[in-house]
Amino acid sequence: MKFTIIGAGNGGLAFSAKLKERGHTVNLYDKFKEVIDPIILNNNIITYNNIDYIIDLVTDNLQVALEGSEYIFIITPSFAHKDLSKEVVKYIDSQTIVLHPGRTGGAIQFKRVFELYDKNNIIGETETLLFACRKEAPTEITIYGTKKSVGLATIPKEKAPQVVKDLNSILPYFVVYNNVLVTSFSNIGAMLHPTLFLFNLSRIDNADSYNFYQEGISPSIAKFIEKLDYERLLISKAYDIDVIGVYEWLEDKYGRDDTELYDRIRYNTEYQDIVAPESINSRYILEDIPMSLVPLYYLARRKNINVPTMELVINLASSIYNQNFLETGRRICNIQQYS
Amino acid sequence: MKFTIIGAGNGGLAFSAKLKERGHTVNLYDKFKEVIDPIILNNNIITYNNIDYIIDLVTDNLQVALEGSEYIFIITPSFAHKDLSKEVVKYIDSQTIVLHPGRTGGAIQFKRVFELYDKNNIIGETETLLFACRKEAPTEITIYGTKKSVGLATIPKEKAPQVVKDLNSILPYFVVYNNVLVTSFSNIGAMLHPTLFLFNLSRIDNADSYNFYQEGISPSIAKFIEKLDYERLLISKAYDIDVIGVYEWLEDKYGRDDTELYDRIRYNTEYQDIVAPESINSRYILEDIPMSLVPLYYLARRKNINVPTMELVINLASSIYNQNFLETGRRICNIQQYS
Repeated sequence: MKFTIIGAGNGGLAFSAKLKERGHTVNLYDKFKEVIDPIILNNNIITYNNIDYIIDLVTDNLQVALEGSEYIFIITPSFAHKDLSKEVVKYIDSQTIVLHPGRTGGAIQFKRVFELYDKNNIIGETETLLFACRKEAPTEITIYGTKKSVGLATIPKEKAPQVVKDLNSILPYFVVYNNVLVTSFSNIGAMLHPTLFLFNLSRIDNADSYNFYQEGISPSIAKFIEKLDYERLLISKAYDIDVIGVYEWLEDKYGRDDTELYDRIRYNTEYQDIVAPESINSRYILEDIPMSLVPLYYLARRKNINVPTMELVINLASSIYNQNFLETGRRICNIQQYS
Repeated sequence: MKFTIIGAGNGGLAFSAKLKERGHTVNLYDKFKEVIDPIILNNNIITYNNIDYIIDLVTDNLQVALEGSEYIFIITPSFAHKDLSKEVVKYIDSQTIVLHPGRTGGAIQFKRVFELYDKNNIIGETETLLFACRKEAPTEITIYGTKKSVGLATIPKEKAPQVVKDLNSILPYFVVYNNVLVTSFSNIGAMLHPTLFLFNLSRIDNADSYNFYQEGISPSIAKFIEKLDYERLLISKAYDIDVIGVYEWLEDKYGRDDTELYDRIRYNTEYQDIVAPESINSRYILEDIPMSLVPLYYLARRKNINVPTMELVINLASSIYNQNFLETGRRICNIQQYS
């Protein structure tokens, strides 16, 4: 199959390498020349697991990148989704789009733009990233963890089984989720990242380079995460969507069966190589607050659900970053039509 | 002179030793037998700077402790003030009371109780603790820092010069503050402690034993403290009280003249021995939130001043500690009569 991968960051490079490993065609796009150029200068070669893979096309020209592909994988920070949707829609043919991941409301946001252009492409999103990975160099990627499974849903929802079947013929990790409300509410990163970040702000801001999850968690932070997660489950329930809590998720994805949430995070060996960001300019806030907690917050408001913990985290981040994330973040509404 | 010291914790022991060093009489009281008994078993001897001092009376009987003293120094966590005021008032004669420190509204809270009993004792409070000190053992105290000066005010305010004169004949560090609104608004601990605590929650909860100020501060935390402090100054101004900011205070008390607040905290050598609490059961929250930020918050509300940063810190602590500090904390009103 022929894929377009949008975003040549950690996730995009890992995905490209895995697709090439299995013999598929990959067009790799990134809008930043400084990301693309080192790969082109390296003759389109990226290295994974000490093996070189030649990417078929590496470009910062979106139109060229999209030509002839069957699947477009969007592996960018979700704050890029909105602008990207307006560009992709101009050049798209009949490709299926998969936001990997959509965070909360990514596919819906894309769909809204596509509707304006009368485009009916299948738009899917995953609940989370498949690979835990890190670029060691501009052309070298390390994958140090793979989730046991990753949920995927589409608009229209009937198309998910076919998409999952296609993808599983290559990377057999995807499972069908009923609709994009399920993927949007299954946003575990939003529960873990900002909380672990803010209660360790000093170390991150001082570039202390500690283990983000295992050293960053503590018993009272785990309890705070439980409160935040409880609010997410309340919202999901109000929209008649059944999703699992962080606690169950850690068993589901990583096989942790400890009694306490704290232990499930503290002793999760899949987290052992994840170093904390060394600056406050991190996606753990700049993506997870505006593209995850903020849309969840507005979805709660529409159903008159109190989410004081969510509000606290958003307001705390807004204060530290001197921007009102409630204004700059993603808002989605009328989501029930996609359920 | 004869003193009653109420509270045989760090501050109480340091004060007792210093008074004995200068040849004064000290009755030392604590309500907890487990604090008092080791001193009694040690024949009333406490050790400071490798010198033994015999305390004249060590007791958990408040009435006995108060007998015949001229000054009562209350050196307890401020959350004990309310209950203590109701006990002290029963046995008091003509002593002068000094809350060391009062946090925000301590002297006023005491005064309200004394009024109910028609008692007109002078009630003073200091803006902060004089000594940075730590008990090394139940009968051994180390003083590792002394502030350059500590403000003291009284109810009625006219009495402060005499009290300061008395105390300065023994420990020449006190300066007259106009009234107890000045001491109450000069609450720097409330600006520093909870903030530095919460943004390092993981390390404290995990008993990581780092340097509370020097390692706990970071550039973005310093900016957050500036926002919080700005709100404190707004409130003070609304009550026509002039107090200095944290930034100036660090110069005033410790001689720091760095350009940035961050540096004034990071490089303050007087902070170099202050180890972070090793549990979340710490006065940095359990005292500073309900007895400092909460009364400041209510004083702001009465003047229709927005204090979003203060509210954030209070709500965050309330969430982590599963108690509503806005309900359990100190509320004072009609404070202008003491100005």
